[in-house]
Amino acid sequence: MKLCIVGSSGHYHYVLDPVRCHRDLDLEIAGIAPGSEGENIEGLRQEVIKLGYKPLIYEDYRSMFDEINPDIAVINCYFGDLAKVSEEALTRSINVFTEKPVATTLEDLEKLKKAYERSKKTFVAMLGIRYKPWFLAAHRYVEDGSIGEIRLLNTQKSYKLGRRGENYKSREVYGGTIPWVGSHGVDWIRWFSREEFVSVYASHSSKHNRGHGDLEMTALCHFVLTNEIFASLTIDYFRPDNAPTHDDDRLRVVGTKGIVEVIKNKVLLIDGKTPGIREIPLESEGSIFLDFLKEVEGKGKCLVTAEDSFRVTEVCLKARQSADEAKVVYL
Amino acid sequence: MKLCIVGSSGHYHYVLDPVRCHRDLDLEIAGIAPGSEGENIEGLRQEVIKLGYKPLIYEDYRSMFDEINPDIAVINCYFGDLAKVSEEALTRSINVFTEKPVATTLEDLEKLKKAYERSKKTFVAMLGIRYKPWFLAAHRYVEDGSIGEIRLLNTQKSYKLGRRGENYKSREVYGGTIPWVGSHGVDWIRWFSREEFVSVYASHSSKHNRGHGDLEMTALCHFVLTNEIFASLTIDYFRPDNAPTHDDDRLRVVGTKGIVEVIKNKVLLIDGKTPGIREIPLESEGSIFLDFLKEVEGKGKCLVTAEDSFRVTEVCLKARQSADEAKVVYL
Repeated sequence: MKLCIVGSSGHYHYVLDPVRCHRDLDLEIAGIAPGSEGENIEGLRQEVIKLGYKPLIYEDYRSMFDEINPDIAVINCYFGDLAKVSEEALTRSINVFTEKPVATTLEDLEKLKKAYERSKKTFVAMLGIRYKPWFLAAHRYVEDGSIGEIRLLNTQKSYKLGRRGENYKSREVYGGTIPWVGSHGVDWIRWFSREEFVSVYASHSSKHNRGHGDLEMTALCHFVLTNEIFASLTIDYFRPDNAPTHDDDRLRVVGTKGIVEVIKNKVLLIDGKTPGIREIPLESEGSIFLDFLKEVEGKGKCLVTAEDSFRVTEVCLKARQSADEAKVVYL
Repeated sequence: MKLCIVGSSGHYHYVLDPVRCHRDLDLEIAGIAPGSEGENIEGLRQEVIKLGYKPLIYEDYRSMFDEINPDIAVINCYFGDLAKVSEEALTRSINVFTEKPVATTLEDLEKLKKAYERSKKTFVAMLGIRYKPWFLAAHRYVEDGSIGEIRLLNTQKSYKLGRRGENYKSREVYGGTIPWVGSHGVDWIRWFSREEFVSVYASHSSKHNRGHGDLEMTALCHFVLTNEIFASLTIDYFRPDNAPTHDDDRLRVVGTKGIVEVIKNKVLLIDGKTPGIREIPLESEGSIFLDFLKEVEGKGKCLVTAEDSFRVTEVCLKARQSADEAKVVYL
């Protein structure tokens, strides 16, 4: 199986980490190329070589696709270019594993969906937090009916800002904090609730962004789902640099029979059966890339589907629109 | 100092608890009366008698006010009647310590504010959670500048439902879950941020309310404050009966220099100075009633002001309106 990597501005470690651990994978990293003007892929090149591959280096990812004709394109350039690169890959019948959001405008998203439908290939966005032991465990408990019917979901993404590159500073290149950081929260809400999104009201602010141009430091989204289920998503880049972890991901799912929470990489459950709050056992960590590979090889379906990847992006872009225009947007 | 109690459907223990502990208070509970049709005050009567008082029992609180002419009216009847009783008290120049929300319609609220302005008396709503050791401690840290400028606030109220009386089952009598449960969250947001509310978008649902009529089991509010500060408030009655506490109050305040949280009656701080997350020492618990009394006696100002009491109620009623009409309401 031949694989090309376009860009190194996102989570390409979703690929390199399992490749490092599973040396028996029938996989060759055959080529790498930048996906955006000015993107430096030197770090990626060194990492790939260190893994024992001898990738061809291209300036133009289209030439790379044409000459190598890979089975898989891993796409993680600047976010504003993701959709264009995915479209080029799908048009050439290449399976796509792409950074999220899969597009940064609704127009790009529509074109990409059409290219996907024509291609009949596997298309998966890097919504990899689902595979964390705590999210898998919480999801299993909810699916088992431990908390009854879901009525309310609260999600949180809190990140350290650090110093970010130029590609985070303009809306056109970056896409916005709701799509970039918030897409995980939107994904958890869809994945856990299995409901459709009805509307969103959102706000965001780039105040106090320490010289990061357009980058929004805070955002808040209020989703109405089918069946009068509501969901909140709070996002910020204000996690102090000396906090113990980069992120502070949280999820709270309120059901008719109990409440399950993911907090500090633990899963807490109150289910009305045993008294008190229980910490439930975690699952083993999964790999979104290996799961994607399984689908490409025709051995099963990836937990994250193309539909998930498109819909999460669409919801995020409409939430961003809501925040830009300070009005409710229907989905 | 003579005191009358109207109704027993709210937090009259805010009064009886400190009275029990401070037997030297110059205070006489001189009369009690129901404030709503069908309200049973027998439990209150027994508790007051057990404290050593011999209150006169009235059918009509207006006669009680006229005959006893108390210094203080403690008002906690059915919520739909609170404003009317407060107005009767203020009109008679009686200081008012009332259950929140202080009114359940905007019309009642306007009339009440006018009565208050004419009276020049002390008027305080039972926003007593401020006086909990964890909220006082968190507030002190924020006031000290430990987290810099506030940018985002997340608040949570989660209650056990149990079996509630008839007065919780109709909108007219109960007022709604956003005003009843949510008023605390709105109060924390105002108290911590010192910002003005610009707009609210809210949702609520009475699905799965186990025969409680109109009562909303879930609610979600999205507030925009001045200076592009945002605040969320999630409310539910789905806390399972066997949870360790009745409520699960939470507050998370994100600032430019750090984040402070109230969770499980603890205060957690990341302030960018010392590494990791610190649990900070709690304050001593305060008493909102003793604080109110201090103001009535001319010895200082109560931490909860009349303005707080009115504005929190107004914000809640407009949030309820937003949820009823599924539209943004400006404040």
